[in-house]
Amino acid sequence: MKIAVDAMGGDHAPREIIIGALQAAAEYGLEIILVGDEARINAELAAHNAGGVTVVHATEVISMGEHPAIAVRRKKNSSIVRATRLVKEGEADAVVSAGSTGAAMASALLNLGRIKGIDRPAIAGVLPNEKGYTVLLDVGANVDCKPQHLLQFGIMGYQYSSKILGNADPRVGLLSNGEEDTKGNETTLAALPLLRGAGINFIGNVEGRDIFEGTADVVVCDGFAGNVVLKAGEGMARMLLKMMKEEISKSLLAQMGTLLAGPALKCLQKRLDYAEYGGAPLLGVNGVSVICHGSSKAKAVKNAIRVARESVDNRLVNAISLNIESIKTRGGCGNLAEGID
Amino acid sequence: MKIAVDAMGGDHAPREIIIGALQAAAEYGLEIILVGDEARINAELAAHNAGGVTVVHATEVISMGEHPAIAVRRKKNSSIVRATRLVKEGEADAVVSAGSTGAAMASALLNLGRIKGIDRPAIAGVLPNEKGYTVLLDVGANVDCKPQHLLQFGIMGYQYSSKILGNADPRVGLLSNGEEDTKGNETTLAALPLLRGAGINFIGNVEGRDIFEGTADVVVCDGFAGNVVLKAGEGMARMLLKMMKEEISKSLLAQMGTLLAGPALKCLQKRLDYAEYGGAPLLGVNGVSVICHGSSKAKAVKNAIRVARESVDNRLVNAISLNIESIKTRGGCGNLAEGID
Repeated sequence: MKIAVDAMGGDHAPREIIIGALQAAAEYGLEIILVGDEARINAELAAHNAGGVTVVHATEVISMGEHPAIAVRRKKNSSIVRATRLVKEGEADAVVSAGSTGAAMASALLNLGRIKGIDRPAIAGVLPNEKGYTVLLDVGANVDCKPQHLLQFGIMGYQYSSKILGNADPRVGLLSNGEEDTKGNETTLAALPLLRGAGINFIGNVEGRDIFEGTADVVVCDGFAGNVVLKAGEGMARMLLKMMKEEISKSLLAQMGTLLAGPALKCLQKRLDYAEYGGAPLLGVNGVSVICHGSSKAKAVKNAIRVARESVDNRLVNAISLNIESIKTRGGCGNLAEGID
Repeated sequence: MKIAVDAMGGDHAPREIIIGALQAAAEYGLEIILVGDEARINAELAAHNAGGVTVVHATEVISMGEHPAIAVRRKKNSSIVRATRLVKEGEADAVVSAGSTGAAMASALLNLGRIKGIDRPAIAGVLPNEKGYTVLLDVGANVDCKPQHLLQFGIMGYQYSSKILGNADPRVGLLSNGEEDTKGNETTLAALPLLRGAGINFIGNVEGRDIFEGTADVVVCDGFAGNVVLKAGEGMARMLLKMMKEEISKSLLAQMGTLLAGPALKCLQKRLDYAEYGGAPLLGVNGVSVICHGSSKAKAVKNAIRVARESVDNRLVNAISLNIESIKTRGGCGNLAEGID
């Protein structure tokens, strides 16, 4: 299997991207194609004495501040566009990038297209919960959604949780301001019956707290709410750890105690570390594209490559496509088919 | 000052409500009017050997499952309606309830009415941040909002943070999926210039993480996003504390350490405890109404009564009214005045 990696995207590019890619190549037995400035990549590779990696030269880089759709159209020789085109041309099986999320998305839409029946690709966030992981989608690609988009997110999340996270029959919930069917905004109220008729394991409305309690394996929402919740969770965790350090630093006994409890606290941080999961899959495009946090270091990149590999191995795109197709042909719920076409 | 307390609302009513009310009466020198089933209230009062508290009999109770607007209209002799009417009739200065949030809101709207220029009252959540408290509003009263509602929330939050939390010139942010002006959904994009022209200390878009980092003193959002974030934060905190206990229980050394660090962890929990702040003020109604969490115990009730007292003392309703009026008369931004009328 060949994975195209955007070597120039992210705060720590190209060094950390390349180190992560090399680790993935060694650990998972993958062929890696590093896409970007050949001279800089080769210098890095020389420093690591690495072989077995291909380099594809790209002269341009799309930065975080650029308008994604415009930049992707103009900079045809940027690392993210070149990497995505390798997938389109059959030279690679998947693309991984820690650069501009919008650019990775725009490039995938332009070059790979959408899965038939999917109106809007979504970015799936994978968050730790008390028992494992919750897939939250969308976390930022689509801020204004229609009910049928939420239906499609539900199906994509269901397949992702099933094929990649190994849940036999994932529980899908719709994020709302209460559990009752009467709770929600205009869009979620209309999405509820669509999801209920989709033939997936839909458990109805769930609340913000359910995301971290592991009540649902998949939580569906628009990209505005998803992004806000994702970042609020991050902020809350950071605040808690900071407050804990502050309180502990106030007493010598507490400091001694923390020394003893240290390894336990390290384990806790590890369980919360996004890098452990690594990468938000872009679902609904006709190919495998995994997006990493801009601040990704080697470990996060390596793990994102693992997610890409599993998506290819488990034929995720095909599974989403078949599921969408099955709803359209099930008939009965005329509404649904209408929403999907 | 007289505070009417709904003695029958909440999971621990009437006992914990009454204990909290008695503590507030003693500590803040307030007159408390307990509203509810006279026999049950008097039995509780006798057990506490309490005096100086008035009881107003109410034969009905509105439960959590009832439709708020309908129940408030039908159950004219319910504890929450009777308590709110005491404010309307000038018999009390404020009302406090831990019962159904919707019923407290509907009762306030029906009996006290709205402040002139406010279309939709909002519930303000007061969340801990790294440095103090962030006022988040709306957290549940209005799931679908228009841009001018967000503007009004901004003004109400500004006045609350200034008058009750003592911030000289509170920083108001608009919750969005990114800091740039181009980020947001249709509603927030339209609300941004309105807030910028409102003459308050508006700092632009903020992200989910800013709520807990204390970047802003007030964060404005619709009731759907606000409710989801509030509960997600609760869920995240609970997950973290649970994970910490799990990790610690795995090793004897860590357990000994935790014993030593115990007081520090207790302080942490206290900083996170919603009861320490106590009560979500209902802003925009023409009177003071404070809503407590349904699971409130005595301490939370006592603190909610303190918030009610401060709202009366600092003439919060008047301050909101003047601020709204000043925007209307400032002219210049025709849009604004239009939005407010």
